[in-house]
Amino acid sequence: MKSFYTVLILLFIGLGTSAQTNSTEDSLNIRKIYDMSLLNGKSYTWLDHLSNEIGGRLSGSYGAEQAVEYTKAELEKLGLDKVWLQPVMVPKWTRGGREFAYVQTGPGQTRNVNITALGGSVATPAGGTKAEVIEVQGIEQLKEYGKENIEGKIVFYNRPMRADLIQTFEAYSGCVDQRYSGAKEAAKYGAVGVIVRSMNLRLDDLPHTGSMSYGDMPVKDRIPAAAISTNDAEYLSGILKIQKDLELYFKMNCEQHEDVQSYNVIGEITGTETPEEIMVVGGHLDSWDLGDGSHDDGAGVVQSMEVLRLFKEIGYKPKKTLRVVLFMNEENGLRGGNKYAEVAKSKSENHVFALESDAGGFTPRGFGFTSNDEQYEKILSWKSLFEPYLIHYFHRGGGGADISPLKGGNTVLAGLRPDSQRYFDHHHAANDTFEHVNKRELELGAATMTSLVYLVDKYGLESTAKDSLNGTD
Amino acid sequence: MKSFYTVLILLFIGLGTSAQTNSTEDSLNIRKIYDMSLLNGKSYTWLDHLSNEIGGRLSGSYGAEQAVEYTKAELEKLGLDKVWLQPVMVPKWTRGGREFAYVQTGPGQTRNVNITALGGSVATPAGGTKAEVIEVQGIEQLKEYGKENIEGKIVFYNRPMRADLIQTFEAYSGCVDQRYSGAKEAAKYGAVGVIVRSMNLRLDDLPHTGSMSYGDMPVKDRIPAAAISTNDAEYLSGILKIQKDLELYFKMNCEQHEDVQSYNVIGEITGTETPEEIMVVGGHLDSWDLGDGSHDDGAGVVQSMEVLRLFKEIGYKPKKTLRVVLFMNEENGLRGGNKYAEVAKSKSENHVFALESDAGGFTPRGFGFTSNDEQYEKILSWKSLFEPYLIHYFHRGGGGADISPLKGGNTVLAGLRPDSQRYFDHHHAANDTFEHVNKRELELGAATMTSLVYLVDKYGLESTAKDSLNGTD
Repeated sequence: MKSFYTVLILLFIGLGTSAQTNSTEDSLNIRKIYDMSLLNGKSYTWLDHLSNEIGGRLSGSYGAEQAVEYTKAELEKLGLDKVWLQPVMVPKWTRGGREFAYVQTGPGQTRNVNITALGGSVATPAGGTKAEVIEVQGIEQLKEYGKENIEGKIVFYNRPMRADLIQTFEAYSGCVDQRYSGAKEAAKYGAVGVIVRSMNLRLDDLPHTGSMSYGDMPVKDRIPAAAISTNDAEYLSGILKIQKDLELYFKMNCEQHEDVQSYNVIGEITGTETPEEIMVVGGHLDSWDLGDGSHDDGAGVVQSMEVLRLFKEIGYKPKKTLRVVLFMNEENGLRGGNKYAEVAKSKSENHVFALESDAGGFTPRGFGFTSNDEQYEKILSWKSLFEPYLIHYFHRGGGGADISPLKGGNTVLAGLRPDSQRYFDHHHAANDTFEHVNKRELELGAATMTSLVYLVDKYGLESTAKDSLNGTD
Repeated sequence: MKSFYTVLILLFIGLGTSAQTNSTEDSLNIRKIYDMSLLNGKSYTWLDHLSNEIGGRLSGSYGAEQAVEYTKAELEKLGLDKVWLQPVMVPKWTRGGREFAYVQTGPGQTRNVNITALGGSVATPAGGTKAEVIEVQGIEQLKEYGKENIEGKIVFYNRPMRADLIQTFEAYSGCVDQRYSGAKEAAKYGAVGVIVRSMNLRLDDLPHTGSMSYGDMPVKDRIPAAAISTNDAEYLSGILKIQKDLELYFKMNCEQHEDVQSYNVIGEITGTETPEEIMVVGGHLDSWDLGDGSHDDGAGVVQSMEVLRLFKEIGYKPKKTLRVVLFMNEENGLRGGNKYAEVAKSKSENHVFALESDAGGFTPRGFGFTSNDEQYEKILSWKSLFEPYLIHYFHRGGGGADISPLKGGNTVLAGLRPDSQRYFDHHHAANDTFEHVNKRELELGAATMTSLVYLVDKYGLESTAKDSLNGTD
């Protein structure tokens, strides 16, 4: 019996030591990752080029094409095992000449207001659209007013983002239906156009664009849709209270073209032990056209590229295959995300993990995870390794639009969660520009992503559960 | 026996219900605090005035005087039980005409570099100072070079802040001796001036000022000291490698005057149950003169005022006395902090708690605490109440310069810990301005402070331990 206990004790000591060693090794490797990113990072330089040399990268634009070429060339410099372009047809929508709008405050008196066409909107007639304005707090209010009050008018959606919500993405979700479906719904009541309060928590003069959809509405029935700055939304709402027959004029020159050829940009470090198991890190290469797309999603692009570079730099060879995927057309179509998942499925590829960064280049706070309980418990066991880096947010629910088509089976989806307070100050607006990204915050995000991928690679997320994927984006 | 168990069970249910009720009540009150701050806050409006109407508030300046008057008047509008000014004599140092500096890159060839006088520095001679430059990585290197290499030269302290440290205040602490004591030490070796690399983690063109001291060095031996922008520090270091006899010229016009009268601004809600127990919230009213001091420490000032206003707004009457103290002269003397503690001691006031906000108006992450173990355990028991607000950082060690003279006995000191990544981009520089403060981040900080003060008031931090204060600033 004595020897049995001795064996048992030695076994426990052994297990303890082994766990200890792993943990120390993990701490050291994660420290190396952060050091490399903060002291010798490449993400900020890449973002500088993407933002300042290329600029806005709307699908189908010259900027998007340049971004494909640039990131492919940069990935090739990293000495990855494979770099390739994955063809995907994307929609092409162009803004045309700058939009113009004013309100008629009196006979011969006008005041300009700041608007921008929503992505996907039709143009106004060549002479512009001028009509009375009816303000609503949301789509559901259209029914209340009915066709008799709406027909021939411009519908002004003015429900603001809720400032009391701590997580600003929640406030965004609570409003964005106005932007996405506002025109389609208002057209049913005979509206001639829609103006939507910008999805912005701050009061300022910048209109924020973003995608909208007419669904399957015939082209002839479609009405133009624009975002108005929050300051001008407040002004418009105020003046409407005293001047109920106020007319608004707006002119937009946007156009929807034939789909064009574009690409997802993909780079890969092939796994040394189980190359058939694939981990993806990614962001989206396209952006809106008003700013240079530094936060949305230049940051996610360069952070994802940096994950592979940091692996190389610290000399860690992943056991599983690690791919960076720079998705095209997240903003107005998700064609890149859908194409990537479609090809993966057609090849029966086994994606064990996908991580997206598409919430801005701000100080990272943690991650949201879409996984089953067993996988989530395993992930939680790594949380303490992130404490020295002030990464504290590990919650169910999360991923990203581009990787969402990979959902299914036991694929764990994760989304980087940066501090969200400033994100909607810049989102889809002219001030989403390089100078609003802080170098350290960007680099901390890249290191945080790399550390998580390192742990997923090392310990795996295999699960015996065949169902119960939990959490939503 | 049956009745005994029944009583016991009822007792447990009772305790459970009571704890439940308290916790629910606390959750609801904290939610009210955040809602009020985010939906109907006053902090941002106050900061707008302090920054844009008043501007820089260096001790002894007109701005500082205006800030005293403005904040006193605003506190009076809140309907507090008492508002008063606490007189304190403060040093008065003026910058004079803008500094000017260049390096002599060749005969008749110069290149300007961006410098700013350190607070407390003497001026250069009227014609400026021109001398060869010797670069060092810190004070300890002076000894290595010795008088033979230093005499007659300008010492250039160029040890950068460490980018690999996650907490930027740690990086600051590791460098600031160069700024504070660099001139005093270099003068011992016969240097004629010092140029210090700005305490800035970013490479840019803005020099960052800050306090320095000559200790008890006779006035005639004092040498002028300036900060140089990080870009120009890199440039200077680079050109010195190839042009070892490079000369630098600088001219500064600063002046130390007689001390002048100023004030701490204090407002109080007198406690309803134990008014002799005092809780303090505060920040410092003075700032450097280059920017408008929005982050340092306009943010802390308006957040502290907001704590009292939020208590009033949600209708919570504190049991203990709650004071806001807007300290004068934190930046170059700490006279206000010392005076407040001196008066408190002379009146044998019982300060149970003091909370300072002086780390910028960025997204709050939590607090640092200086307390004994028992007090800290109690504080930790409140942590989960902050989770919905993404407040996660509760650590030992912390407070603030102004409240540090209150240390002793069982007084718990706490410091708000906002996200620190961007702080030193702005600290003591011309870009510490209003547009770099985000309204929501500022308001979240005010609500976070208010919530903590609410819990301290409600549950107390009495301790049986009479020693073992732990943690440092």
